Amino acid sequence: MAIEKPTLHIISSPALLPYYAMKGATVVVIDILRATSSICVAFAHGVEKILPVANPDECAIFREFDFLIAGERNAIKLDGFDLGNSPFEYMNGILQGRSIALTTTNGTKAIRGAREAGAHQILIGSFLNRNTIIQFLKKQTSPVFLLCAGWKDKLNLEDTLFAGSLAAELSDIYSIDCDTAVMAMDLYHQHQHDLLSIVSQSSHAKRFRSYGLQTDDVQFCLQHDLYPVLPMLSGEYLRLTTV
Amino acid sequence: MAIEKPTLHIISSPALLPYYAMKGATVVVIDILRATSSICVAFAHGVEKILPVANPDECAIFREFDFLIAGERNAIKLDGFDLGNSPFEYMNGILQGRSIALTTTNGTKAIRGAREAGAHQILIGSFLNRNTIIQFLKKQTSPVFLLCAGWKDKLNLEDTLFAGSLAAELSDIYSIDCDTAVMAMDLYHQHQHDLLSIVSQSSHAKRFRSYGLQTDDVQFCLQHDLYPVLPMLSGEYLRLTTV
Repeated sequence: MAIEKPTLHIISSPALLPYYAMKGATVVVIDILRATSSICVAFAHGVEKILPVANPDECAIFREFDFLIAGERNAIKLDGFDLGNSPFEYMNGILQGRSIALTTTNGTKAIRGAREAGAHQILIGSFLNRNTIIQFLKKQTSPVFLLCAGWKDKLNLEDTLFAGSLAAELSDIYSIDCDTAVMAMDLYHQHQHDLLSIVSQSSHAKRFRSYGLQTDDVQFCLQHDLYPVLPMLSGEYLRLTTV
Repeated sequence: MAIEKPTLHIISSPALLPYYAMKGATVVVIDILRATSSICVAFAHGVEKILPVANPDECAIFREFDFLIAGERNAIKLDGFDLGNSPFEYMNGILQGRSIALTTTNGTKAIRGAREAGAHQILIGSFLNRNTIIQFLKKQTSPVFLLCAGWKDKLNLEDTLFAGSLAAELSDIYSIDCDTAVMAMDLYHQHQHDLLSIVSQSSHAKRFRSYGLQTDDVQFCLQHDLYPVLPMLSGEYLRLTTV
């Protein structure tokens, strides 16, 4: 008898979580610009743990307990916070061994949503740790959901594109009966040799330009496999784990 | 001063309606397999009006009032109903001048959702009346939302593909700042010369095959511009209007 393959779905917005049976599943949270990319950079630079927090006021409290506080709203660093959401801010020796409390527009919401939906394992995925995520997922037997953080509950291009890039590598060992995944894999196949061109058309990249923000962030976050890190939610905290 | 273009968005699931400001907008409801395709066929064959109804029991009542009752759940014709959801069932002279009460898994839900969200004009779009919809949208000045009915609040491929085909024709006269639209236009551009191949990979086409249903429906519903009809919601009813 053929062994049944585990299923893989892409969920293109946290608003669609209620329509998927997530109990006991493995979830990869994806927020390419920029939360999950910056989380990978932070761990690669020695951060011990990251606490995802829903709102800025709540996040700020953790400074009392020797956390660095980090966060943005609408792509802008929160006033008085130690760190924003640019990956370049997390390339700093002072992060070694520190704890960070982090709140972002979409990323922390997606992490929380996956947890409330009963996910068993929640991982942080980005192009920067893409191959490490793929190797981990190749060893799973539970259903997998690739959860795009999107932008305020709407779809975004770069998260869908990355989810498609994972699904494309896993289509032999997972059963993929999911139109979002078919479309996302198609998007990745068409643009894999020039991700920057298509991502430059995304509303997020346009938003960066309109704010006069460092557009290097976009280019940086599309690089593959800079950091072989595997951040996973463990209790309340994101911590490093191994494949 | 440049005249500001109206905006165009694609909404890939009725579950995402709350995240868009739809008041006063023009909405095209899209359920390619098969509700909005069959509605176009019905009007092209002389149906006077169609009443979208949320649930089957409520729908059945209208037989007392000389309506034909039509509907499916999970792609299967409802027991005791006059008509299911296949476009071929609506190519019948007996429909001339008749009224139909219609309930479907996704399509009627999307129509209702758009209405409750405060849309000003609600149109029915499919490949079968594609050019007529395009000509109508070229004359609008209000915001436009292309609303994909999807499958039980998840995305589906064929609705997204069709929405992309409309957006691609309208990108000069509308302002499109919407990642769903960028992705949908890309999908259409890649597959416009062989829609059947990509739609055959959709979960809906697979569902048809697994039920042993007439797969001719899929091929039929991908034909462009068979019927120059423009069904629009007017009060409680869908009726024909003109560009």
